[in-house]
Amino acid sequence: MTAFAFLSDSSFLKSARNELARPYGIGGIAWDGAVTNRPGARFGPRAIREASHMLCDGIHPHFDVAPQNQLTDRGDLPLPNTSLADMRYAMAPLVKTLIRQHHMVWLGGDHSITLPLLQAYREWLGQPLAVVHFDAHCDTWEDHFGEPSGHGTWVHEAFQQGLVVPECVTQIGIRSSGERAAREYVRDRGGQIFTARDLRGRDGPAGMAPVVQAIRERWQASGRPPMYLTLDIDCLDPSFAPGTGTPEPGGLTSTQVLTLLEELADLPFVGMDCVEVAPPYDHAELTSQAAAAFVWTYLCGRMARSAGVTTAAPSSS
Amino acid sequence: MTAFAFLSDSSFLKSARNELARPYGIGGIAWDGAVTNRPGARFGPRAIREASHMLCDGIHPHFDVAPQNQLTDRGDLPLPNTSLADMRYAMAPLVKTLIRQHHMVWLGGDHSITLPLLQAYREWLGQPLAVVHFDAHCDTWEDHFGEPSGHGTWVHEAFQQGLVVPECVTQIGIRSSGERAAREYVRDRGGQIFTARDLRGRDGPAGMAPVVQAIRERWQASGRPPMYLTLDIDCLDPSFAPGTGTPEPGGLTSTQVLTLLEELADLPFVGMDCVEVAPPYDHAELTSQAAAAFVWTYLCGRMARSAGVTTAAPSSS
Amino acid sequence: MTAFAFLSDSSFLKSARNELARPYGIGGIAWDGAVTNRPGARFGPRAIREASHMLCDGIHPHFDVAPQNQLTDRGDLPLPNTSLADMRYAMAPLVKTLIRQHHMVWLGGDHSITLPLLQAYREWLGQPLAVVHFDAHCDTWEDHFGEPSGHGTWVHEAFQQGLVVPECVTQIGIRSSGERAAREYVRDRGGQIFTARDLRGRDGPAGMAPVVQAIRERWQASGRPPMYLTLDIDCLDPSFAPGTGTPEPGGLTSTQVLTLLEELADLPFVGMDCVEVAPPYDHAELTSQAAAAFVWTYLCGRMARSAGVTTAAPSSS
Amino acid sequence: MTAFAFLSDSSFLKSARNELARPYGIGGIAWDGAVTNRPGARFGPRAIREASHMLCDGIHPHFDVAPQNQLTDRGDLPLPNTSLADMRYAMAPLVKTLIRQHHMVWLGGDHSITLPLLQAYREWLGQPLAVVHFDAHCDTWEDHFGEPSGHGTWVHEAFQQGLVVPECVTQIGIRSSGERAAREYVRDRGGQIFTARDLRGRDGPAGMAPVVQAIRERWQASGRPPMYLTLDIDCLDPSFAPGTGTPEPGGLTSTQVLTLLEELADLPFVGMDCVEVAPPYDHAELTSQAAAAFVWTYLCGRMARSAGVTTAAPSSS
Amino acid sequence: MTAFAFLSDSSFLKSARNELARPYGIGGIAWDGAVTNRPGARFGPRAIREASHMLCDGIHPHFDVAPQNQLTDRGDLPLPNTSLADMRYAMAPLVKTLIRQHHMVWLGGDHSITLPLLQAYREWLGQPLAVVHFDAHCDTWEDHFGEPSGHGTWVHEAFQQGLVVPECVTQIGIRSSGERAAREYVRDRGGQIFTARDLRGRDGPAGMAPVVQAIRERWQASGRPPMYLTLDIDCLDPSFAPGTGTPEPGGLTSTQVLTLLEELADLPFVGMDCVEVAPPYDHAELTSQAAAAFVWTYLCGRMARSAGVTTAAPSSS
Amino acid sequence: MTAFAFLSDSSFLKSARNELARPYGIGGIAWDGAVTNRPGARFGPRAIREASHMLCDGIHPHFDVAPQNQLTDRGDLPLPNTSLADMRYAMAPLVKTLIRQHHMVWLGGDHSITLPLLQAYREWLGQPLAVVHFDAHCDTWEDHFGEPSGHGTWVHEAFQQGLVVPECVTQIGIRSSGERAAREYVRDRGGQIFTARDLRGRDGPAGMAPVVQAIRERWQASGRPPMYLTLDIDCLDPSFAPGTGTPEPGGLTSTQVLTLLEELADLPFVGMDCVEVAPPYDHAELTSQAAAAFVWTYLCGRMARSAGVTTAAPSSS
Repeated sequence: MTAFAFLSDSSFLKSARNELARPYGIGGIAWDGAVTNRPGARFGPRAIREASHMLCDGIHPHFDVAPQNQLTDRGDLPLPNTSLADMRYAMAPLVKTLIRQHHMVWLGGDHSITLPLLQAYREWLGQPLAVVHFDAHCDTWEDHFGEPSGHGTWVHEAFQQGLVVPECVTQIGIRSSGERAAREYVRDRGGQIFTARDLRGRDGPAGMAPVVQAIRERWQASGRPPMYLTLDIDCLDPSFAPGTGTPEPGGLTSTQVLTLLEELADLPFVGMDCVEVAPPYDHAELTSQAAAAFVWTYLCGRMARSAGVTTAAPSSS
Repeated sequence: MTAFAFLSDSSFLKSARNELARPYGIGGIAWDGAVTNRPGARFGPRAIREASHMLCDGIHPHFDVAPQNQLTDRGDLPLPNTSLADMRYAMAPLVKTLIRQHHMVWLGGDHSITLPLLQAYREWLGQPLAVVHFDAHCDTWEDHFGEPSGHGTWVHEAFQQGLVVPECVTQIGIRSSGERAAREYVRDRGGQIFTARDLRGRDGPAGMAPVVQAIRERWQASGRPPMYLTLDIDCLDPSFAPGTGTPEPGGLTSTQVLTLLEELADLPFVGMDCVEVAPPYDHAELTSQAAAAFVWTYLCGRMARSAGVTTAAPSSS
Repeated sequence: MTAFAFLSDSSFLKSARNELARPYGIGGIAWDGAVTNRPGARFGPRAIREASHMLCDGIHPHFDVAPQNQLTDRGDLPLPNTSLADMRYAMAPLVKTLIRQHHMVWLGGDHSITLPLLQAYREWLGQPLAVVHFDAHCDTWEDHFGEPSGHGTWVHEAFQQGLVVPECVTQIGIRSSGERAAREYVRDRGGQIFTARDLRGRDGPAGMAPVVQAIRERWQASGRPPMYLTLDIDCLDPSFAPGTGTPEPGGLTSTQVLTLLEELADLPFVGMDCVEVAPPYDHAELTSQAAAAFVWTYLCGRMARSAGVTTAAPSSS
Repeated sequence: MTAFAFLSDSSFLKSARNELARPYGIGGIAWDGAVTNRPGARFGPRAIREASHMLCDGIHPHFDVAPQNQLTDRGDLPLPNTSLADMRYAMAPLVKTLIRQHHMVWLGGDHSITLPLLQAYREWLGQPLAVVHFDAHCDTWEDHFGEPSGHGTWVHEAFQQGLVVPECVTQIGIRSSGERAAREYVRDRGGQIFTARDLRGRDGPAGMAPVVQAIRERWQASGRPPMYLTLDIDCLDPSFAPGTGTPEPGGLTSTQVLTLLEELADLPFVGMDCVEVAPPYDHAELTSQAAAAFVWTYLCGRMARSAGVTTAAPSSS
Repeated sequence: MTAFAFLSDSSFLKSARNELARPYGIGGIAWDGAVTNRPGARFGPRAIREASHMLCDGIHPHFDVAPQNQLTDRGDLPLPNTSLADMRYAMAPLVKTLIRQHHMVWLGGDHSITLPLLQAYREWLGQPLAVVHFDAHCDTWEDHFGEPSGHGTWVHEAFQQGLVVPECVTQIGIRSSGERAAREYVRDRGGQIFTARDLRGRDGPAGMAPVVQAIRERWQASGRPPMYLTLDIDCLDPSFAPGTGTPEPGGLTSTQVLTLLEELADLPFVGMDCVEVAPPYDHAELTSQAAAAFVWTYLCGRMARSAGVTTAAPSSS
Repeated sequence: MTAFAFLSDSSFLKSARNELARPYGIGGIAWDGAVTNRPGARFGPRAIREASHMLCDGIHPHFDVAPQNQLTDRGDLPLPNTSLADMRYAMAPLVKTLIRQHHMVWLGGDHSITLPLLQAYREWLGQPLAVVHFDAHCDTWEDHFGEPSGHGTWVHEAFQQGLVVPECVTQIGIRSSGERAAREYVRDRGGQIFTARDLRGRDGPAGMAPVVQAIRERWQASGRPPMYLTLDIDCLDPSFAPGTGTPEPGGLTSTQVLTLLEELADLPFVGMDCVEVAPPYDHAELTSQAAAAFVWTYLCGRMARSAGVTTAAPSSS
């Protein structure tokens, strides 16, 4: 046997595979071995790619661009699957190479993949990153039910390891239960949190303006660091994203997320991941189509608004 | 064999079948041979009828009327099913007769059925129509992947054939991808578009007042033409309507659509269709119940607000 | 045979079972023999308990408390299941005992269980109750398709039997069809109704303030009677709660309900039920997780805001 | 309100409704208030009718007849739904009339409907009946978890009430757990049992010959009493019939049941019921289509083989 | 827009795409516009390919070969989708080319694709073909509900057009209803039929020997014509293949089909199609995995047993 | 946080928990971190327990015993979940204790748990074991896609580590693809294999007699070693067990497995595991109910036939 059956054999937007000269790239990290509840996110990369095929000839209605010709799909990383530590060890050199070749969007997989991604960007860029973090959960646990790392510990680890600019970490959509120290972890270290509760009844560019403004101001005040976007699909309410591992009622709507992605598009993101899409619990591709739309919007936003920011010049961020 | 197994054997609201003297009628067009992605809308008429049975003794909470005694179900049209052209050819005389017998609501079926419906109304009424068009997609393609007509070309064809009053065509909920020429087709010809993005954060009569006002003003400014309502269920976000063929994340909520149907009720609609309900992708009747509620609200609105407008007097529109 | 297979063998939040000294208790009433459409709510108690396990170590993000140590699960009541009358007869003495032992939250079951619950509270407290009633349906029918009582008659019966303070009955989320006399039943007797239509576009504490204020003022004006909360999960739009027996499109969002539960938390509730969760129609635990979150929020609100109100001192309400 | 939403508005095989002169009739008994586990069989009559539409122009491949023109659908009986006793009381006079009008096939509903059906046939025919009983469960409990009657007690009750000829009661497919007295109840009273275990590896006319022969011989030896067929769909293995309330692994295949229905067709059945089809747990109509095929095979067998036996001449049995 | 969203972007067994030198090829015909009941077979090619990925490193346990290196996937044919006639017109030249390049296995699509496939083979080979036809339905209708051709008419058309050797047409698994003339059409013209009823209780090489022997003898007696295999997945019982358009209870088991495919492997097949896999009605990939296993078994059988028979030498058959 | 949300809070057959004096015990190993395709078996212990509740008052129809009073449920083992090696390290001492307290049945979890179980039994009993192994897959890979151990390597590892008596290893139901060395691994080392193909058409005690006889004879010829039963639910055909991670068409029926469990019951088994039940892919509890029935049958068989063989006297095996 040479490869796991769950690895994908198709490409995002049916873009050409492994075209090294294209500026944007897709990479799948089909790993779900660090979830605390429902597994299945290993099928996320495959399902998001399949869902993207509805968009494969599309031009974005807001940004008026189409990403196909600038995009290549680099497939799913070949990774071991019985140990988080071994997976991350194998993942590191692969990521190191890919982020130097393309502006990458990573399709997870569970949220434990974001820590090694941040480590790679931190090392490559030579500075800590601003992070926009969509999620139902704060992911600031100090351990994973007794183990050192899981899919709910990466924010804590990123702060501990100096991967992020604390004032430029923004969490959006948080509503998970937990002790105050965990819930306020980011705010206690200088970052900001917009809980799902804070955003109830807000939508559209006007409704979301305070969020966008706050992110922008902090970024400017902190010396305009490079930004990273991590989007856990469970930021959405379960009615919009049933196909995920740890759903939490009372979440964001898909239009709230789309509004933020559109309004934040001119910030200098250097990469994105979209994680925790777990197709076995999905229905009629609700979740994977939402994820595909978010990734597509991010890519179109990059191309439309940030022409000067490419992976070849990260310091220009 | 005499009839396809998918034709319905029950009636909307359990209303009496084939009562020619009743002013309102239901007709099913169980055709889905022109869809670009997921087929199944042939089961739409059956599923919407079944879903309507929860309403069969109901009195509408907003309009305070009940449509059962004024309504008859004329069943599903007998149609060939392997060719769009042949289907439309067979459909035309049947529709011609029915719209003269009743104020009809048509249950689709995919959106390719709206073109021959508009042709029939245009011919009968002797003038082009105002159209209120709920949809995720603009349906203005100039071809169907190389074929002349499909479920995404009818708006283009209707404009080309002079079936509509351009200034009185209003699209609501649009969010599909595509080139600018297609996306702005209706606006470029004098019509108006309220994208799903435009409506984010708007709901209730106050929130929707600008939309309602704009439709009304254009109608008055254009000589008060008869109006037609076409409602593609994919105007709803997929979380509200998973059972459809080409879902698009970021759509309307069911309360947004209900608000508009209620607020527009005093306009002189001469007919309605509700299309693209594809039950194989539905769950727990979410989509068919939404469709049944929309059709029921339309019918109750007709009866409550437009007592003077019946199929016997189309010119009074 | 000794017990029905559908009775639950697990406990809400994995709390200890049958700890008589704990102030809060959970009781299941796994009965769905009085529904007019889709049965299955007998599995509601089991599904809500299973769904609660995602919260079993949680601390509420708004109230900053955790209910586990003050809570006990008393299991599902042993009840006959072929006759509503016999079921209620068997239920009465069991409820009588339990409400004197704990501040109870009841997991239904269909809404026909609320009448005997109100009877028990009325008798115990010696006075009629204020009621906050979340529902799509007004439940004011005078009969159940020819039978005297069902899941849609209990409001009428409660008024007739003097179980409630009419001015302090508030219905929230109503949108069902029916004759005016039924729809306005509560208002005609002095109560108030916030239909789903009334709440379109309102969310968050500010958006919901008029509702909260109105409930509070009536309660104060009526001598501050003890309050009871009955939450039919179909108050939610079917996209948020597909797993219910009589879904109605156009309903509340889960954040609207959460907002109201949080904002009303300092009122002197003496008990709650959450009914009509019908798991056979659910998907990916959407409905049971929403129900679990609502019950958990209620319990945390009780503990956080109403320290002085316990089951030992109902008159202090 | 006048009727429950779950009552069917279509007819078996799309046959004409309420044609009193036709010899064969279909009646629905949409009741599931006496089940011990998963409810939902109230939707059985609707689902079996819908499933039958695939057969509506069919001619039976084994019997070479088509039943449509001799068949009428009498709809679902109007019945109260919160009490088994009240339901049976309302059901009795309706059944009494129908069995004198047509050779009826009854679509359940749960198995508690068979007792009043047998009572009606016993009274009409003036003698006890032979019964062929397909089921996973012996249905010989002496009570229903403390109540006198349920869906698992009717065999015991039928014996106690003298409704059956003990030697001519044959149970097929039995595999449920229970004490020996219940499992062997029928055999202890002179009847015979072919458990699912007994039939493992047997199929086709040759394989089933001993079963058929044994039934025939007992019937002849007992004076050729009229026969009744009651088919609980859970006689099938759950893989063939997931949509039922109390599935039991290790059951019959659909070809085993078809073989027996075909081979027994020349016996003088006076009626049949098909019960416990619970559509909420079904997938892709597996269960309702199996049920429709069984009912259709029974009807075709009647018409092909038993021309002399009609409802007008029950004594000829 | 350039291509329908439902076309597949992955390959069978992850084999290399468009390798013209490889002897075996896969072609998808994603068309379902001629079905009489549930559409969805357009997703069949995609689903069968995805399901095959579990086998992508496999060596067949019976034939001890692996097809990957001799196989190429030629993708889905680009076809119009609103007219059967237009689709067949576009399909013909594509098929003509492909069958000369590879020994093809065709993934449908509905069964209306088999007629033009047989036409292409007939023309290329210069003689009529023997056909082994697995199906629940005889597909011998003389029209398609009034239209000349559909998915149930191709056998009749093939006989009329002289595409087949009548004595060498074998139907296996037939159980559909219909008039005698249709059911016996093939037998009346000299062919043979093994109904599902005929095969009850038969399995394994010994049990299936008479079927295999009869096919072989007729083939030898008729001058050893080239053979074609068409496998409608609804030959399987719906419990094994719920994901199909016109399921029929009482069908074959997957082991019966596997046995026949294995035992017939040394006959000189020149091509195969596997049709009517309709993924929207499938569960957990039951149907698409069965289809993938059948195609894989056919391919392995070809390679193991028929080394001398390649597409370059059809006359050697 | 103290425990994963997926751990079960109910018990098999609703038996009492943690009763150390009872001879039989249930233990859950909710681990699925070593699967090659679809994860989800971590929910297996919970689902099998829930499914068992239909049997909770049952007496086995073949063995005429009921296990409740001799059985205790020891819950799910507390285990780390991001590393197979760490999980096995934590599992070992827990298993060591439990097998000395009770005759255990283990609910998996994926098949990687069987290796440490065999290690524990081997150490405790002081001798290698006979193994009856139901499975679609031979599980004899020498590595797990590059890692040393997974869910498909345990048979190889068990042979290498001397945990089994080679002549007494019997594989039943095997049909997976793979190279000859893997497929014949067990036979090459002296064991025996009954593939699913070998068993086609065999069922019932007579049909299965050769299998039973062969197992018994080898056991006697090898000095009657203690036996272990490992049952991978994917031995069943996917139609009987869709809820599993690596389904393979062409598998056993549930009656074939039940027959073997019944016929083998008098052999001296010292323990059993039932693995690879993956509820996210299940429908209507088909798979978990089959698993529950198998475990229940094993337990009843133990109690009925092997009164002298208890965990207190392993050497008597």
